[in-house]
Amino acid sequence: MVQHLQRRRRLFSIIQMDILYQDHHTDALPFATQTTPSVLTSYGANRPTVYRSPLNTYQSRPFRSTEPMLRNVPVSQEPIRTTNSIQAASVASNHSILPTYVHTTVNLGKALLINNILFKDRNKERQGAKKDSQDLDKVLKKLGFEVEHKDNLSGKDMLKRVKQFSQSNFNRHSISLVVIMSHGNNLMQSGNEVKAVPGGFTQISGVDNTQVATDTIVNQFTLENCHSSLKGKPKIFIFQCCRGDKSLLVCHDAAPIKAQTKLYADVLIAFSTLPGYTSSRNPETGTWYIQSLCDVIERHQREFHIEEMLKLVDDQLNNKHPLYAQTSTYESRGFKRCFLYKNS
Amino acid sequence: MVQHLQRRRRLFSIIQMDILYQDHHTDALPFATQTTPSVLTSYGANRPTVYRSPLNTYQSRPFRSTEPMLRNVPVSQEPIRTTNSIQAASVASNHSILPTYVHTTVNLGKALLINNILFKDRNKERQGAKKDSQDLDKVLKKLGFEVEHKDNLSGKDMLKRVKQFSQSNFNRHSISLVVIMSHGNNLMQSGNEVKAVPGGFTQISGVDNTQVATDTIVNQFTLENCHSSLKGKPKIFIFQCCRGDKSLLVCHDAAPIKAQTKLYADVLIAFSTLPGYTSSRNPETGTWYIQSLCDVIERHQREFHIEEMLKLVDDQLNNKHPLYAQTSTYESRGFKRCFLYKNS
Repeated sequence: MVQHLQRRRRLFSIIQMDILYQDHHTDALPFATQTTPSVLTSYGANRPTVYRSPLNTYQSRPFRSTEPMLRNVPVSQEPIRTTNSIQAASVASNHSILPTYVHTTVNLGKALLINNILFKDRNKERQGAKKDSQDLDKVLKKLGFEVEHKDNLSGKDMLKRVKQFSQSNFNRHSISLVVIMSHGNNLMQSGNEVKAVPGGFTQISGVDNTQVATDTIVNQFTLENCHSSLKGKPKIFIFQCCRGDKSLLVCHDAAPIKAQTKLYADVLIAFSTLPGYTSSRNPETGTWYIQSLCDVIERHQREFHIEEMLKLVDDQLNNKHPLYAQTSTYESRGFKRCFLYKNS
Repeated sequence: MVQHLQRRRRLFSIIQMDILYQDHHTDALPFATQTTPSVLTSYGANRPTVYRSPLNTYQSRPFRSTEPMLRNVPVSQEPIRTTNSIQAASVASNHSILPTYVHTTVNLGKALLINNILFKDRNKERQGAKKDSQDLDKVLKKLGFEVEHKDNLSGKDMLKRVKQFSQSNFNRHSISLVVIMSHGNNLMQSGNEVKAVPGGFTQISGVDNTQVATDTIVNQFTLENCHSSLKGKPKIFIFQCCRGDKSLLVCHDAAPIKAQTKLYADVLIAFSTLPGYTSSRNPETGTWYIQSLCDVIERHQREFHIEEMLKLVDDQLNNKHPLYAQTSTYESRGFKRCFLYKNS
C-alpha cells in the first residue's frame, strides 16, 4: 500500500497546473474525490465509430526536444489500448494522419431538432422558422440521419428532451446532432440586476420564456452523463439564436456599404484547455500544449492549415501522462483556412 | 430625404432577429446610433492578404429554395467590391472553393509572445515555461514571423502591449498572432462573492495578480480598434492558461487507466452568430444560418467535413443583405474531422 501511494506521488509530482489559486503541485489536487466515470468500465464494448489516430506515427518518431517529456514518471502498467477497427476515410492521402471519425454504423447518425416558433408572448413568434426545420429534416434524412422533431417546448421540456436523447442508445448511430432554434440572449441575474455575461455565455429560450444555458445542453453529453454508446463519437451542437442585442450594421455616411469583410470576423481563438479546467505544465520541458504546438507546426506546416494542426496537437495531449488528460479547444469566428506559409 | 428614409425602411423591414427582449422588426433597431467604423473609408488601400471567396460560385448557381432570399429588398447601389488580388493557394483542387487566406506580404506575420513566469507571489512561478517561448520563437521565426517577446508583465502592461501591437502597421505582414502564456481562471466578483462565470469566460493573470479577460485581448483586434492594415487578415490568439480548477484525472478503482478517449472531447458547438450579437431571420424563407447550412450540406457533403462546410456557411452570410452582416462561430473541443457520410 505504501509502495502504491509512493508510486502515485511520483506520478503526480511531475506536472503543474497553470492556475493561481491552488497549490502548484498536483499532489495537492483532491484526486481522491474524483468520481470514476462508469463508462470506462465498458471499454472495448460495441464501438463502431472510431477515429484514426496518428498515435503510432508520433510514437515511432523521436520527440524534437532532447528532454524526455515525462522524466521519472513510471509508465502505466495498463497496456495502451488501440482502437478496435481502423478504416481509411476517402480523403486525399496527405490528410491520412489527421484524426478523423470513421462511421460504420447502420445509420449515419441521430438528430434532435428543437424549433421554438410560437411563444406564450405572441409577439415573439419566429416567423419563417418552420421552413428551417423542414429543410433541415430533408437534408439530414438524405444523409442517413434518424431525425426527431420537437417544436415549441418550454425550457424545462427542452432540457428533459435533450437528456432523454443523450441517454438513448447510439449503438446503431455514429454521430449525435442536436439543433436548437429559438430566441436567445447572454443575460443573467446578478443581485438585483440583469447583466450580460462576458465570455460567450449563451442561453436559449423555451416558449414559456424560461432560459436554458447552451452549456447545460452540451454538458448532457459528457461521458458521465450520456449513454456509453456515445463514447468517442462526434457530438455536434448547432444553436440558431441571438446571443445578445448587438447587431452588425455596416453603415457609412448614412449610405449602405456592402462590407466585403465583416467587422469581427477572421478571428481564431485557441485555448490549451477546456472552459473550467486546468492546463498542465511540465516543470522541466514546458507546457504540454505549447510544446505539442511547436512540434506539430515544425513537422506539418507545409501540409496542413492551422486548425488541422490544432487537431493534431489535441491528439498529442492524449499521450502526455498516464493519469491526466487535457482537451484543447479552438473557436473560429468567421475564420477561413489559414496556412502558415507564404503564397508567393 | 423622405425617399431615402423610405428606402431604408424597406431595407430594414424584411429581417427579424432571434432575440426576445427587443421588438421583432429591425425598424426598431437603434441604427442611427451605430458608429461608423472609420476603417471602411480606407477600403481598397494596401490589402496584400485576401481570401479566395466562393462568392462567384454561389452567385452563378440558383439558390436551392424557390423563394428569393431577400424579396422586396432593393440591392445596394454601391457596387459590390471585389478583392484586389486573387491568388490560388497551393492546396488540392477540390478544396479550391474553401475560403482561404492568401499571404503575399514581405513577412508571413507578426507575433506577440507574452510569457508570465515569475510572479510577485514567488510560489506562483511557472517553472519550465521559459522553454515554451524559446521553442515558439524558433518555430515562428523559421515560418517567417517577426516575433516580439514580452515576459513577466502586469495585467495593465499586458493590455497596453496588446493594444500597441493591434494598432501597429501590418502592411508588410499577413497574419497577426498573439500568444499569452500565464496562470488563468474563470472567476469574477459578484457582490461579495467570487464566482466561476459560466460559458467559457477566461481571464489570464498578470505577474501582479491583476487579471485580463481573454475577450478584452481579442476585442483589441476588432476593425474599430486595430490598425486598418489588419482588415480581412487572420488574427490568431493562443492562450496557454488554466480556465478553472477542474482537472481531467482519469482514474478507475484507484488504478490508473490510460483513457483512449477523453471525457469531454469530441464536441463541436456551432452558433449562428457571435457572442453578444443578434442573429437574422427572414420571416418568409427562414434564418440565414440554417438556410445556408442546408444549402451547403446538400451541395458539399461528399467533399468537405463539417467544419469546412461551416466555413462556407459563414461565407454565405456575407451575401445575405446589403446592410446587415452576420458572423457565425464554431468551437471544437477535442473534435476530429467529421464527414457527413458513412465510411462503409
